[in-house]
Amino acid sequence: MIKKQALYEGKAKRIYATDDENIVWVEYKDSATAFNGVKKAEITGKGRLNNEITSLLFFLLTAKGIANHFIKKVSDHEQLVKRVKIIPLEVIVRNYAAGSFSKRFGVDEGKRLKRPIVEFCLKNDELGDPPITDDQIEVLEIASTDVIETLKTSALKINDILTEFFKECRLKLVDFKLEFGVDADGNILLADEISPDTCRLWDIDTNEKLDKDLFRQDLGNLIDAYETILQRLGGKQHV
Amino acid sequence: MIKKQALYEGKAKRIYATDDENIVWVEYKDSATAFNGVKKAEITGKGRLNNEITSLLFFLLTAKGIANHFIKKVSDHEQLVKRVKIIPLEVIVRNYAAGSFSKRFGVDEGKRLKRPIVEFCLKNDELGDPPITDDQIEVLEIASTDVIETLKTSALKINDILTEFFKECRLKLVDFKLEFGVDADGNILLADEISPDTCRLWDIDTNEKLDKDLFRQDLGNLIDAYETILQRLGGKQHV
Ligand SMILES: Nc1ncnc2c1ncn2[C@@H]1O[C@H](COP(=O)(O)OP(=O)(O)O)[C@@H](O)[C@H]1O
Ligand SMILES: Nc1ncnc2c1ncn2[C@@H]1O[C@H](COP(=O)(O)OP(=O)(O)O)[C@@H](O)[C@H]1O
Ligand SMILES: [Mg+2]
Ligand SMILES: [Mg+2]
Repeated sequence: MIKKQALYEGKAKRIYATDDENIVWVEYKDSATAFNGVKKAEITGKGRLNNEITSLLFFLLTAKGIANHFIKKVSDHEQLVKRVKIIPLEVIVRNYAAGSFSKRFGVDEGKRLKRPIVEFCLKNDELGDPPITDDQIEVLEIASTDVIETLKTSALKINDILTEFFKECRLKLVDFKLEFGVDADGNILLADEISPDTCRLWDIDTNEKLDKDLFRQDLGNLIDAYETILQRLGGKQHV
Repeated sequence: MIKKQALYEGKAKRIYATDDENIVWVEYKDSATAFNGVKKAEITGKGRLNNEITSLLFFLLTAKGIANHFIKKVSDHEQLVKRVKIIPLEVIVRNYAAGSFSKRFGVDEGKRLKRPIVEFCLKNDELGDPPITDDQIEVLEIASTDVIETLKTSALKINDILTEFFKECRLKLVDFKLEFGVDADGNILLADEISPDTCRLWDIDTNEKLDKDLFRQDLGNLIDAYETILQRLGGKQHV
């Protein structure tokens, strides 16, 4: 597989073409951003850690039968994935109140929800990734009712798998964000990344934060926390 | 019926007890507020106009079989209604893009939606009436899934009735906000008001705004517009 021209660059990753038009080469950057890009830093080692953690989690999800874009890790900070057209929705699953949910509804951070819920945000940096309901998605022709249902069902199944796995690793999966895309054959695949940038992960006993909130809220060393996550998951690592 | 002590006061109305514990006396104030109370003014005649318009529209909805709180108008700025426990949700119906929908999703104001949609906001001034999804409502135990469905179905039925009636009056019903409550017998009743404070109403030919956006955006005389609305509806008035 040959790495060819850069196709686009996001806040956390660079995407390159390859000699196969259905495969892209993903490079994880050392950039940390928060609040829609307003807060920024370069943190050496972050790209490697998120690539390792994402590779490991997608490997697990593949084993559990979740259709996804992951092909393989090709270096410590790079992976190959199936090229998809990203559905412009952030699919958020919450098990406990935190972040915007806590703030918006005045609910204490860490309160367990009586069941997991799925939320959507429109993936649009210019508009600030606004929350969007099923009806709004449908009426704005961002996705059909069928696709919305598929995304929800899949997100909840992924939540079950990840919650169980993280628990074995002494981690509490508070909430997380997924992105899905459509491949050349029209299949809906889980895409993007699953990392401490996109999940809230707390120590199961102490509730210590081990995710990007450390950066958002200046609470401590991000790399130490991400290394802790990788090590705890690594007990199960097969990548 | 005797007007007794004031029970509570909102931004637009004062609610009084009566000698019947299941009936309250509503006084429409001349206050105009916008942006969650940040912008304020006293506008003489507004209370009367909103009372007249609301009375007329609830009379129509009663005739069309919509269960609601309205009993009767008792003076130009007062009415009697069945006392309910308000469900703390603003139920918003949209036929055309406008207001927060246009802003949040970058859609031109006035664009017709391919079908009417219902949205909810949590009625909580302190939190700024945040948008809330069905799942969030259910998980926060604000209303059950059954109640949510009842509110949606009822809101869409009310939309059909009002859209048709306003059209006969040469008005375009762009969007509107409803509140529902539960009466002493556990019935879900349409409550609160339906007025140019709570509806976006445009002239059907010119798209001239004839509602509270005139106040929000300093576009012109509110009283003239509300008088126009009342006169146009009055052709059908039976109150
Ligand atoms: N399999 C894939 N095929 C094509 N694009 C993808 C794939 N997986 C993720 N992407 C996209 O790659 C881009 C770069 O990722 P990232 O740096 O995280 O962007 P962002 O700044 O939007 O968070 C994003 O637009 C993401 O949706
Ligand atoms: N039938 C009813 N019984 C009891 N309360 C009602 C009824 N209809 C409306 N209300 C409530 O009366 C209060 C005063 O109305 P308003 O001035 O519009 O308040 P707000 O500032 O919340 O918009 C509101 O809380 C409204 O929900
Ligand atoms: Mg990203
Ligand atoms: Mg009100």
